[in-house]
Amino acid sequence: MRYLILLTALLVTAATADEGMWQPHQLPDLSDRLQQLGLEIDAQNLTALDKFPMNAVVSLGGCSASFVSPQGLVVTNHHCVYGSVQYNSSPENNLLVEGFLARRLEEEIPAAPGSSVYVTEAVTEVTAATLAGITDSTPGIDRYRIIETNRKALIADCEATGVHRCSVSSFHQGLEYFLLKQLEIKDIRLVYAPATSIGKYGGDIDNWQWPRHTGDFGFYRAYVDVDGRPAEFSEDNIPYQPASFLEVSAKGVEEGDFVMGVGYPGSTNRYRTSSEIENEFTWFYPQARQFREDLMRIIDENSVAGSQARIAYESTLASLSNYAKNYQSMVESYQHSDFINRRRQEESNLAAWIESDSSRAQQYSSAVIQLQDLIESDHATRERDLVSSYMSYATLPNTAERLYRLAIEKQKPDAEREPGYQQRDLSRFRQSMQRISRRYDKQVDKAMLSYLLGRYAELPEQYRSNAVDSFYGISDRFDQGQVEQIIEDSYAQSTLDDEATRLAWMEKSQEEFENSSDPLIRYAVASHDEKMLLERSDKELRGRFQQWRPRYMEAVIAYNRSLDRPIYADANSSLRVTFGQVRGNQPKDGLVNQPFTTLEGIAGKNTGLDPFNAPAKQLDLIRQRQYGRYALPSLGSVPVNYLTTLDITGGNSGTATMNGKAQLVGLLFDGVYESIIGDWDFDDDKNRAISVDSRYMLWVMEYMDGARNLLDEMVIVD
Amino acid sequence: MRYLILLTALLVTAATADEGMWQPHQLPDLSDRLQQLGLEIDAQNLTALDKFPMNAVVSLGGCSASFVSPQGLVVTNHHCVYGSVQYNSSPENNLLVEGFLARRLEEEIPAAPGSSVYVTEAVTEVTAATLAGITDSTPGIDRYRIIETNRKALIADCEATGVHRCSVSSFHQGLEYFLLKQLEIKDIRLVYAPATSIGKYGGDIDNWQWPRHTGDFGFYRAYVDVDGRPAEFSEDNIPYQPASFLEVSAKGVEEGDFVMGVGYPGSTNRYRTSSEIENEFTWFYPQARQFREDLMRIIDENSVAGSQARIAYESTLASLSNYAKNYQSMVESYQHSDFINRRRQEESNLAAWIESDSSRAQQYSSAVIQLQDLIESDHATRERDLVSSYMSYATLPNTAERLYRLAIEKQKPDAEREPGYQQRDLSRFRQSMQRISRRYDKQVDKAMLSYLLGRYAELPEQYRSNAVDSFYGISDRFDQGQVEQIIEDSYAQSTLDDEATRLAWMEKSQEEFENSSDPLIRYAVASHDEKMLLERSDKELRGRFQQWRPRYMEAVIAYNRSLDRPIYADANSSLRVTFGQVRGNQPKDGLVNQPFTTLEGIAGKNTGLDPFNAPAKQLDLIRQRQYGRYALPSLGSVPVNYLTTLDITGGNSGTATMNGKAQLVGLLFDGVYESIIGDWDFDDDKNRAISVDSRYMLWVMEYMDGARNLLDEMVIVD
Repeated sequence: MRYLILLTALLVTAATADEGMWQPHQLPDLSDRLQQLGLEIDAQNLTALDKFPMNAVVSLGGCSASFVSPQGLVVTNHHCVYGSVQYNSSPENNLLVEGFLARRLEEEIPAAPGSSVYVTEAVTEVTAATLAGITDSTPGIDRYRIIETNRKALIADCEATGVHRCSVSSFHQGLEYFLLKQLEIKDIRLVYAPATSIGKYGGDIDNWQWPRHTGDFGFYRAYVDVDGRPAEFSEDNIPYQPASFLEVSAKGVEEGDFVMGVGYPGSTNRYRTSSEIENEFTWFYPQARQFREDLMRIIDENSVAGSQARIAYESTLASLSNYAKNYQSMVESYQHSDFINRRRQEESNLAAWIESDSSRAQQYSSAVIQLQDLIESDHATRERDLVSSYMSYATLPNTAERLYRLAIEKQKPDAEREPGYQQRDLSRFRQSMQRISRRYDKQVDKAMLSYLLGRYAELPEQYRSNAVDSFYGISDRFDQGQVEQIIEDSYAQSTLDDEATRLAWMEKSQEEFENSSDPLIRYAVASHDEKMLLERSDKELRGRFQQWRPRYMEAVIAYNRSLDRPIYADANSSLRVTFGQVRGNQPKDGLVNQPFTTLEGIAGKNTGLDPFNAPAKQLDLIRQRQYGRYALPSLGSVPVNYLTTLDITGGNSGTATMNGKAQLVGLLFDGVYESIIGDWDFDDDKNRAISVDSRYMLWVMEYMDGARNLLDEMVIVD
Repeated sequence: MRYLILLTALLVTAATADEGMWQPHQLPDLSDRLQQLGLEIDAQNLTALDKFPMNAVVSLGGCSASFVSPQGLVVTNHHCVYGSVQYNSSPENNLLVEGFLARRLEEEIPAAPGSSVYVTEAVTEVTAATLAGITDSTPGIDRYRIIETNRKALIADCEATGVHRCSVSSFHQGLEYFLLKQLEIKDIRLVYAPATSIGKYGGDIDNWQWPRHTGDFGFYRAYVDVDGRPAEFSEDNIPYQPASFLEVSAKGVEEGDFVMGVGYPGSTNRYRTSSEIENEFTWFYPQARQFREDLMRIIDENSVAGSQARIAYESTLASLSNYAKNYQSMVESYQHSDFINRRRQEESNLAAWIESDSSRAQQYSSAVIQLQDLIESDHATRERDLVSSYMSYATLPNTAERLYRLAIEKQKPDAEREPGYQQRDLSRFRQSMQRISRRYDKQVDKAMLSYLLGRYAELPEQYRSNAVDSFYGISDRFDQGQVEQIIEDSYAQSTLDDEATRLAWMEKSQEEFENSSDPLIRYAVASHDEKMLLERSDKELRGRFQQWRPRYMEAVIAYNRSLDRPIYADANSSLRVTFGQVRGNQPKDGLVNQPFTTLEGIAGKNTGLDPFNAPAKQLDLIRQRQYGRYALPSLGSVPVNYLTTLDITGGNSGTATMNGKAQLVGLLFDGVYESIIGDWDFDDDKNRAISVDSRYMLWVMEYMDGARNLLDEMVIVD
């Protein structure tokens, strides 16, 4: 545990906060510290998933959220309900522009297909069951398969209720496994979303930036059947009644106040070795960023702005750009930090601790050595693996491969199929086949494939595939013109760009694939065996990692325990709790991020052009200083967004920011640019999470949108 | 006078500071206020140009500077001595990279040609002499010419000493005129400049930005002949002994401290009318920015990066880009401010004040009306005037025009010639003809001319020139291909791209021009008469402005005096004094500029790539926390740059930032981005000037460059 130190005399708060995404069961160990920081409820409560406030917190699968009324009202980020707003929008009724507010239950509209609310009901340790049948001498490939089989069995058993979604998550890199059992509520309806000019104010320009003025909140409601059980959409369904819900604070927080976040952070890498870190930051991120920028350029060059083709790729572009910027920040932060040296020092301390005691040496030395060997094996094929991971951007060939794989997997008993091809995955698979119709353009896809094959052709021969080389006529000499002709011909003859055809292929047999004359299907068939060989050798390596990473983490944990430092597991989309404070920081020498932004900042930033086009009514209200009860006196205005020291990552979007009483004081929605490297290295001075303030939410609801019904439904406290 | 208000609770200083660039003779009126702010020396001293500290301050013509030793040592900005460093650099001895330090007088090297130190000896009011011969009924063109003639006579008389450079400057838009008499010291030598990686750290990227870490300082020495008189360079010359010089503070300033700046601000527009402001910000700046961006694009498209052609245009590009950014900031600030509404309100207050008293109405009403009429006449031809002002970017035709004009002007008695073509201007004229050899490329010039003619051709016929239309075959129908062919042919046949040819034309007669077969000379001859007609009508308009602006300013001043508000004149390159404090600000909602940056910030920003490539030795010293006596305790490090509320503009570069004892505590070198509009509208919250800290200067001199000789020569005080 490191403590935040004071940055400058200007930052007057003196208390400290903690790095860490804690599993609820770890919290009793931290309770003294939490009380001291400002937690007012019993820390013991935070360990019980069936108690307030933990059972008020839900997952949306990718986002976090919370119940805020006894009638299943769910609050999360605007960007988490955005898909549903988009789905219900039409040129005549553009909810994105106007926003949406149901004033009665009957006016609530179905969320986008695939939307669910997941209520975590149980988290059970299943380490023994997951590893059952494995010994120290189990070979890597077998280890991998046994774990996979055991996980599937645990999941199938857990999901037998028909209303749960379950998963087996690895903690501490496979040292522990937990079965997560979530009630899946599938009838989700859109209740309220402010206009995009509020909910996404600042748009992508302000993404990862401070100062920020985004009204990033929206409301769903969870519906169940009349018996209270999850069910598909039906007009007869009734609001779900959660066991508890959060009160919403109109008083909000002040600089230095204690806050906590309870949500579902996706993934972090806080315990990687120095050689993995060095590889990632000096090789992988720069390379992957280049791939992304090249693909963005290709989309740009092959589709006219505003055209149907460009619209199809808007979300791909957004994602490519988002991560290109993400990787750029990672590399910048890395270059300006002592991260690698610190990690090397920690490793050397760990090694000294291990070697200083012969029984420890016996227990842990081999793990350190074996892990390093595995990492080197892994890095040996990094060029191939990187190219291979980006090949899926060529949608049509990738679709052929996935469909053929499905035909093969379907022949196996469900439990033996590759994850992603099991019965439970098929409706998502089908949705992905449908989505291609909206996210594909032939010319762009061909251009991306041509580029990707060019990158592939640069690989040494040993890393290329005979089938790919032979299909595209690639040898050590790469003839772009010839490859493009082959792409041209195969796309011209393929019918996979037709949605009905794709869906029909989902039902066909392996033999039908092997007899097809569709060139891309033939390509998928021809390249399959080599692909499977690669996959097998990859699983063998993963299996060996599954053997040694847990041993290594065991050493890390033991070493830290010897220093009285509790260790939290890397994020893995399971429920976690993080603690901190409302606090600004100094992002650069000479510059201070203040903890709060204000209504006036919205007007100050406004240009009238998207994404800085606040509604005229809002600008009027700001001009009139219509603050209502929501002003923070020390600020002299209504706070819009604020910074905290909470330790978050992707997946935390929509996480309730709670005060010491577990009242909702905001919603986490982003981090500052310097926080991006936080997935690897939490820096007390640099890491800041951004929340939309509950006071701003209530202000928008009351003064902008007149959402009286929701204000009445929620319990709003001072 | 407006007072700075506190921005946020974080900015703890409570004192206030003033807008204003004051003439020394105004200071006694302000002395109470200055004492209260922190001035420790007698304010009366600041009025006397022959007393300390005023006679320690000098102009470099475009930059400000100060004497800092009894032996003529002059300190100014690095960017003010940059040309001399560049001039003395060679690939073998790259002073830009290494920096330069003369350890003895004999090692000091001549500054770039044209460098002078100007010591202001007298500022005398000459309003009556300037306006002698003018009555209320003098027509505009005559008024313009009489003023010009009177000014020339005053200047010629003043410069009769042979060692002075004189000018007659208009104050309050022509309400007052002052004769500025400056001793011109021409033998200037480069003494010391740190490496560019210190002196220009952050380069153009950090230009107009905060946080800033630029070591923007350098040293000249002024030399005179053995009799102490200014003279051309000679090895026999000796250091000039100034009447006084500034002590340099090693103690420096702290947040909230009083500071003042004494220097030569170039030009401001603080008293324009609302219609002028609206025209400038909603029409001129956006249009001019477009011109600049187009020209930059044309240079970019017609010269390869790194080529001789591109190098020739680097300074043109830098200037185009600099002002494009400047105009952009102006427009942004304007859009986010209430400037225009405020000015309209002030005008309406002024009008009400005038109308409320019949004698005032009689005295001032017509000025307000007449000025507005003139402004409308001026704006009527704004498209033509804008195109015409950018035509000079086509170097070769412009050169032909200037040379022909010279031939015509030379036939007149010197006193009657157009300014710029008088005897006193000829050596600069010659230098500009020589400079073309380094700043011209035929292909780029042709492309720019083609673009400019395209813009010209868009003008309505009444605003086009018959001679230009006929030379380039332009009519209401514009044939770009035909125009380009004419450009191609005329450049192919012209010999003006040869330096010797250009210089030879400086000596030729009007008749020789008229008989020339050089197509560009022929063009200059053909277009001359229309040009002169336009110039005459422009002078007529200027003359009418010279009649009515002073009357308008008289009303403004009287009105302000009635409110007990002293009025300073717009900047006009004459010596001015500004007062303020060391103080950060809040550039945006949620963000605070701290007043100081630190050594650690240099390391934090460093990428190893220009312009963020601090010397390895500097990074080592920073790592070792080698602060010496130069740390600011409250900061825990050596301050590098700092912000003040001083009211400055272009020309203030190199201005000594002085403490209350008139000791040098830094050098002004830039303003923050939000200050750019300050030329029109000083905003207490937004305007901040940036100084390099005297402690950082001394730190670099002591620890980086070992400039012991200079540290010993100066008087360094704690």
